[in-house]
Amino acid sequence: MQRNYSDIKGVKELIDICWAKGMEYVIVSPGSRNAPLSISFAKDERIKSLVIVDERSAAYFALGIAQQTRKPVGLVCTSGTALLNYGPAVAEAYYQRLPLVVISADRPTEWIGQDDSQAIPQPDIFKGFVKGSYQLPLDANNPDDCWYLNRMVNEALSRAQSGRVGPVHINFPLREPLYGVKKYPDMDERVIRKVSAIDYLSDESVEELVEVFNSNQKILILAGLLHEQAELGELLQQLAKKPNVVVMTESVSNVHGEDFLPCIDRVVCSIKEEEKKDFQPDLLINFGGPLVSKMIKAFLREYRPKEHWFVGKEDHFIDTFKNLTSHIDVSPLAFFRQLVPALNHTASSYSSLWKERNAKVGNIHNQYLDGLQWSDLKAFEKILSSIPAGGNLQLANSSVVRYAQLFKSSDQLRYNSNRGTSGIDGCTSTAAGAAFVNGKTTTLITGDISFFYDSNGLWNKYLGPNLKVILINNGGGGIFRFISGPSGVEELEEYFETVQEYKADKLAETYGLDYFYAENEKEVEDILPEFYAANKKAAVLEIKTPRTINDQVLINYFKTIKEKV
Amino acid sequence: MQRNYSDIKGVKELIDICWAKGMEYVIVSPGSRNAPLSISFAKDERIKSLVIVDERSAAYFALGIAQQTRKPVGLVCTSGTALLNYGPAVAEAYYQRLPLVVISADRPTEWIGQDDSQAIPQPDIFKGFVKGSYQLPLDANNPDDCWYLNRMVNEALSRAQSGRVGPVHINFPLREPLYGVKKYPDMDERVIRKVSAIDYLSDESVEELVEVFNSNQKILILAGLLHEQAELGELLQQLAKKPNVVVMTESVSNVHGEDFLPCIDRVVCSIKEEEKKDFQPDLLINFGGPLVSKMIKAFLREYRPKEHWFVGKEDHFIDTFKNLTSHIDVSPLAFFRQLVPALNHTASSYSSLWKERNAKVGNIHNQYLDGLQWSDLKAFEKILSSIPAGGNLQLANSSVVRYAQLFKSSDQLRYNSNRGTSGIDGCTSTAAGAAFVNGKTTTLITGDISFFYDSNGLWNKYLGPNLKVILINNGGGGIFRFISGPSGVEELEEYFETVQEYKADKLAETYGLDYFYAENEKEVEDILPEFYAANKKAAVLEIKTPRTINDQVLINYFKTIKEKV
Repeated sequence: MQRNYSDIKGVKELIDICWAKGMEYVIVSPGSRNAPLSISFAKDERIKSLVIVDERSAAYFALGIAQQTRKPVGLVCTSGTALLNYGPAVAEAYYQRLPLVVISADRPTEWIGQDDSQAIPQPDIFKGFVKGSYQLPLDANNPDDCWYLNRMVNEALSRAQSGRVGPVHINFPLREPLYGVKKYPDMDERVIRKVSAIDYLSDESVEELVEVFNSNQKILILAGLLHEQAELGELLQQLAKKPNVVVMTESVSNVHGEDFLPCIDRVVCSIKEEEKKDFQPDLLINFGGPLVSKMIKAFLREYRPKEHWFVGKEDHFIDTFKNLTSHIDVSPLAFFRQLVPALNHTASSYSSLWKERNAKVGNIHNQYLDGLQWSDLKAFEKILSSIPAGGNLQLANSSVVRYAQLFKSSDQLRYNSNRGTSGIDGCTSTAAGAAFVNGKTTTLITGDISFFYDSNGLWNKYLGPNLKVILINNGGGGIFRFISGPSGVEELEEYFETVQEYKADKLAETYGLDYFYAENEKEVEDILPEFYAANKKAAVLEIKTPRTINDQVLINYFKTIKEKV
Repeated sequence: MQRNYSDIKGVKELIDICWAKGMEYVIVSPGSRNAPLSISFAKDERIKSLVIVDERSAAYFALGIAQQTRKPVGLVCTSGTALLNYGPAVAEAYYQRLPLVVISADRPTEWIGQDDSQAIPQPDIFKGFVKGSYQLPLDANNPDDCWYLNRMVNEALSRAQSGRVGPVHINFPLREPLYGVKKYPDMDERVIRKVSAIDYLSDESVEELVEVFNSNQKILILAGLLHEQAELGELLQQLAKKPNVVVMTESVSNVHGEDFLPCIDRVVCSIKEEEKKDFQPDLLINFGGPLVSKMIKAFLREYRPKEHWFVGKEDHFIDTFKNLTSHIDVSPLAFFRQLVPALNHTASSYSSLWKERNAKVGNIHNQYLDGLQWSDLKAFEKILSSIPAGGNLQLANSSVVRYAQLFKSSDQLRYNSNRGTSGIDGCTSTAAGAAFVNGKTTTLITGDISFFYDSNGLWNKYLGPNLKVILINNGGGGIFRFISGPSGVEELEEYFETVQEYKADKLAETYGLDYFYAENEKEVEDILPEFYAANKKAAVLEIKTPRTINDQVLINYFKTIKEKV
């Protein structure tokens, strides 16, 4: 079989390698300089190509796909500011460890700075937050240049997926004419395999770690952001049964076990000053991406464990709690596979201390929620209990993901949130990409500031009825009311909360989405089944909560826990 | 008098210097890390601070202000992806030579890469397209650190405004607590003056240049993007009267003279192959930012002048026509002030050759437009003749600014367009910023792709009734139909034109704008006076044109000129 591609041979070579290295989707943003790439990806039948105009949104959409598939996702744009619009999602991908592959068309180097159109210095533009930057040769028909291009594209695609997974940037200068097409034989390009060492610790290392573990009565295992880890969950559950071990998870850890503590903030807030030393771990084992819970970070930075092991493939030391003592440079799964079977029983009351506290706090939580007035917290209770099992949940930054953590996460849902750098700028686009690729009911819970920020996430042709956007509209960035700093300053409403009165109904209409609205508990209860049953289009459910009481409800929530415990 | 500012002394120091160095406006985007900055700017009564949530839009809004005032405009954001969203507007400012001052809050360096929130490597993040990147010291209360900070902020603000004007980036790491406030005496910070050499050529240099000029019978003077140049216009008009000189301007040159040729494309397209040598200049003098006209660039790259002088304060050689022979490193105004009075009369028919051709082409243009069917071109004729005198016109990329150049520009309007890098991503926000600061009727003409791309340009509280958005909705990126490459490929509609059927009425409603609609010549004629008379709110006029005939109308336009000339 033969295929048509751009008559610039390097373009065809790049696509073949992308395919061979696992790329299934590419998002193209329209432009002229990238024509050889967009035409060729369009003609290629193996990699599915989508078209999204706003590059910022396109890149977050790609991130949403990568979150679900864990495979390299391509991004193709034209030269100039187009590329800069990828910046936010590329940084997020770097810290969320997702393999985005940015392929930017560029003008030939001799045209940069010559006051010609759309020419900016593109090589290395994302230097600090990509795993590699590659400048392809201009004359991608010359055999030596093609050899060089082949090697670089091979390396870029491998690098994105090995070790600490992350984005790469391939900059491709292209000279006119750009629109020529020719036929090539199918897939005769060299693909360089990368054969890596097995992710396995030596017996001596394991023995040494096991000895420390067994001799330790107060061990805290803390999971950060993880993408997909069923087996890891089982191993952790075995650990969580041990009397000397506590396993804490976040919603976005995506591991579940009946003995875990999945609501960190509400347990940690309950610890009184005089109890802190009892709850303080001696050994902390931490893995996964950034943590949502500020409370556990603050607690562990003050009551530092004697040892902190960070487990994960990383180039740098990650010293989140200011007390890192060991970096165990293998994947968490590999580590626990070796560790767990080798452990002994160690008598301790540490686990029951935390578990009893957790149960008590759970009861106070339920009492507090029971009959609680209409507020953000109440809305979350209603929403989280209504999400259909088997679905995918996308939690926007920043208050949404924090509220969600106050409720026990469900093992029937996959939790995602852009916690790599915690920006509010692409939550909707990310959810749209995730919904597109996984086909499951994908619920985005978002606030009004993040929703309006990324309204372009709705401006594409790939929104299906499985995308359910729940917008909690409290008329501004309510999180700033809760933080003690800004809540006291006179600039609160204008400079922090950004009070606003916008509604989403017309936006939903503009982009062809169904729209639902509710503004109290009863209405929310009534409308949620209807909202989930609607199956013609993507849908928005806007839930209005009162702007000025949410902070007090939340402050009281934590206060009540502390008092009643 | 005393004022309240953040208790981090460096913040107060920075604001004092910004004020002393001419900053009048700062756009703040909400966040927590930048609290010391936003609180202090809010409390400062000298620099007016505005709040815009979407940093991409905020930065283009600031650019719109800088376009009008030519003074440094501040941008304040929190750490993380917030800063990356400034990227597109910063690049545009660099190539449009506008003094944006990015002030990004940052986490202390020890927290970067530690999986803590919103921490990315921020220093030097815009390295290739700012005039300077400054990393402020963390401990901005210590006297030596304050001395260092003072010097850097002084330098940054001066650098942005001297030589080749352009953006700078000041990165400000801030450590908690962030919300403290205290009283300071008013303005006791050191301000370092920058005293520059006078922008003046030596007598010898002028003599030499004048000699070349006087001996030359075919001189083409070509103005690119200029911000404000009334006196320059008068000097150029004196030149345009000389028989050996032709002065060509673009809409965005903002210089006017009765003997100029202000519609470059329509004249240049008329030149037949055998005439090209006659029209070819021997000396080309060029100044200002990037040129819109592709035709003049193509013509001059093929029929190169013997000499090309580029006039302007630049660090690099700008060789737009591949034949630069002299870089005259003073401002165009300084150059022509010295040159013009020293020139003699030089007999030549070069000026009349171009002027006669221009007159002829003008007649053909009028005939063609007369009775032309409803189309983009017809819509531009109607719109451009209806814009109230004394106003400000913002032309979106990319087809809008090209269409506008086919019509004679008015000396009663100020023309602006983001032609630095020619992105479509911030046209609405830029217009909003310009309208906000100049108070005059500001008309943005935009296409549907650029309008929807930057719909967040409408998401702020600073849109007044003087902002008039005219959206020409032809259902996609029509420019790709006109370019010969993409028009021939089967991927045209999906990968280039991006055919879409969205309407702007609900978006206008969401953001509280008035909305008008017209879909033929008669309706446009009727509605324009009403649209401009409306004076309660900012307004959108959506004009529907038929998607598939615009390219043919434009192709025929150029063909008709060529045939009938």
